[in-house]
Amino acid sequence: MKFTDRLNNLGTETAFSVSQDAQEFQKSGKKVYPYHLGDLDIPTPSNIIDSTYRAMQDGKTGYNPPAGLPELRKIIAETVGTERGIDYSFHNVVIQPGGKPVISKFIQALMNPGDGVLYPNPGYPIYESQIKYFKGKAIPYNYISKDISFEIDRDRLEKSIDENTKLLIYNNYQNPIGAESDLDEMEWIANIAKKYNLIVLSDEAYFNIRYEGTSTSIASLPKMKERTVILYTFSKTFAMTGWRLGAAIGPIHLMKIFTKLAINDESCTNHFIQYGGIEALEGKKDGANKILKELKIRRNLLATHLESIPSIKVFRPNTTFYLFPDVTEIYMMLKCKTYEEFRLKILNETGVSFCTREHFGTPLPDETKKYVRFAYSGISVKEINESMIKLKKFLLPLENLVLSE
Amino acid sequence: MKFTDRLNNLGTETAFSVSQDAQEFQKSGKKVYPYHLGDLDIPTPSNIIDSTYRAMQDGKTGYNPPAGLPELRKIIAETVGTERGIDYSFHNVVIQPGGKPVISKFIQALMNPGDGVLYPNPGYPIYESQIKYFKGKAIPYNYISKDISFEIDRDRLEKSIDENTKLLIYNNYQNPIGAESDLDEMEWIANIAKKYNLIVLSDEAYFNIRYEGTSTSIASLPKMKERTVILYTFSKTFAMTGWRLGAAIGPIHLMKIFTKLAINDESCTNHFIQYGGIEALEGKKDGANKILKELKIRRNLLATHLESIPSIKVFRPNTTFYLFPDVTEIYMMLKCKTYEEFRLKILNETGVSFCTREHFGTPLPDETKKYVRFAYSGISVKEINESMIKLKKFLLPLENLVLSE
Repeated sequence: MKFTDRLNNLGTETAFSVSQDAQEFQKSGKKVYPYHLGDLDIPTPSNIIDSTYRAMQDGKTGYNPPAGLPELRKIIAETVGTERGIDYSFHNVVIQPGGKPVISKFIQALMNPGDGVLYPNPGYPIYESQIKYFKGKAIPYNYISKDISFEIDRDRLEKSIDENTKLLIYNNYQNPIGAESDLDEMEWIANIAKKYNLIVLSDEAYFNIRYEGTSTSIASLPKMKERTVILYTFSKTFAMTGWRLGAAIGPIHLMKIFTKLAINDESCTNHFIQYGGIEALEGKKDGANKILKELKIRRNLLATHLESIPSIKVFRPNTTFYLFPDVTEIYMMLKCKTYEEFRLKILNETGVSFCTREHFGTPLPDETKKYVRFAYSGISVKEINESMIKLKKFLLPLENLVLSE
Repeated sequence: MKFTDRLNNLGTETAFSVSQDAQEFQKSGKKVYPYHLGDLDIPTPSNIIDSTYRAMQDGKTGYNPPAGLPELRKIIAETVGTERGIDYSFHNVVIQPGGKPVISKFIQALMNPGDGVLYPNPGYPIYESQIKYFKGKAIPYNYISKDISFEIDRDRLEKSIDENTKLLIYNNYQNPIGAESDLDEMEWIANIAKKYNLIVLSDEAYFNIRYEGTSTSIASLPKMKERTVILYTFSKTFAMTGWRLGAAIGPIHLMKIFTKLAINDESCTNHFIQYGGIEALEGKKDGANKILKELKIRRNLLATHLESIPSIKVFRPNTTFYLFPDVTEIYMMLKCKTYEEFRLKILNETGVSFCTREHFGTPLPDETKKYVRFAYSGISVKEINESMIKLKKFLLPLENLVLSE
């Protein structure tokens, strides 16, 4: 059996192998501290579960329209619109089985082979995979570490644009970095999109995972609504990663194309879970608030621990559930030659399991600093404390050694 | 905003517009008899719903593996294997959000641009759409009407094969025709696949919707397991169309490719509904038996009605929930120029709403007979009786007129 040539261009999420390593380690009887998961160990709020059960009992078990239930599309249009200050109707919304399918549909609808697509690196690996799979030119843009955050490397981004560049993927409230644009940076991105006539995919998966300040969507900037598709998902805000419920929000004529792709790809999104989605947005918000409160406690705790380790530099983002510490010094102290060597050494010595920068795209040639991603969405306060004690215990002699040299 | 060239090759399910017409008709205060839906109006069995609810409450709301829950993969391998006499392990199974995504993944994994794919016409329209979308050569094969069934046109099928033909899509227990192969025909298809080294997608969505006799899978014929992917779905057997739960079953190395595509397309299938799938296969079968019993009553009733109409020729299939009557005489009597004219005339005169042969692919140039599809999965016994009285009332004067001419 011969497989197709197109598969040579298909990427994957290499983070799955990190889970496997963690499982192997656990099987040997040792404790794993799972910082590698972009998943939540917090259950979905019970009002959402109960509404879904009622819908199942009410016979919402047959097909529903390919673009999703009009009621859900309407409440998403209203909620997302109100939160962002944008006027959307239900015609702007196509329900999807998760946020991820929006990426592929955006690429398929708007990128011809050879077209260039700007995407964040480090970033969610499926962007690059889908660009390359559908034979586009994947153009990474990077972030520069500043004192208290990361900034997009504007010079490099603009210089990499040519006449074939058509799309820009923007993940504000960024996975894995936790970076967010200030208004100046967001306006600069929007102006670049308008100047070079780029259509923007705004991946807003973490828009509502915010501990301080307020979130802003690039779609709300002048003349951006008509050139932006928002990737919306219930996954993070409502601890619904395993439900597979999200939406594309964008220009109506483009949403018709998304619907036609949906008819081909998936027929429709599960019927009854969409009633859970309606309850999530219309019902009590206690559950979502509790999730956010718990995540904030973990963020503060983990950040405080990491900040106390001299050989680690870390900034404390106001959004996402990730920390992206600079571990260059430890990497050097451990004399590692590869990220994988580094990751496995820490795992084997301490049980602390994380993804490295490499799980979010190929490091750029001039990149010298070393980063890893700590996700605190799937690990308890108790385990954070335990794991950080182990990590410090492992690192302290090394740090002392370096200090005494 | 400019859309991509590839979209020019993307087909759709035109049957959706039939639903819209039916809705419009209903809005005008008239009664619609919905024979156009490939959906069930029967609820999912309650034990499946309850197991799913328990899984939600047990916190099965986070991600699960891209290939699906090992427990579900295992019970599918056992059930499908036992029913078909094939030895499968869970490694042969990739859980999918419905049966439909198996079609696209099969094409993407095995068909290079320019490769030929044999597919049934009339047939499920997504086959042709996906073949053309991914730039293959769509090669329709047809069915010849026999006294009590339809047979594959073997001559035409074999003649249309050339050195670029790589795949064959086989939908035994066929939508829309209701045709099924006898063993001779199935063996002939299998031998063609082996002779020309074709990989087979065996769409077995209706394998368990059987009123008399037993179903056979082409994968169970000698040396076919290693060149066949079974499309499996919970949709029909358990009235779970809106759940979006299915699976691909095939050679392990190919299932790894399917899993990689799943990571890109959908991350994973909804977590908790997979526990519903486990219950469907492991638990009580009363629900599924009741569904089948009800469908059989409807089939017998509808077929008896249609058989009593002189101007209609219809055969009574032992599987699927479709009848595919030859309506050539009525079409002529009504002096219709197009299938759409015919469909809308019957809808407007009687409220009887169905899909025509055209919703299942472009009629072949030498095709003279006219067919429509009656789905009896979404219409009650009472409505079947009512609608057939109306249809006969409408047709009788026409028939008398013809007889008296």
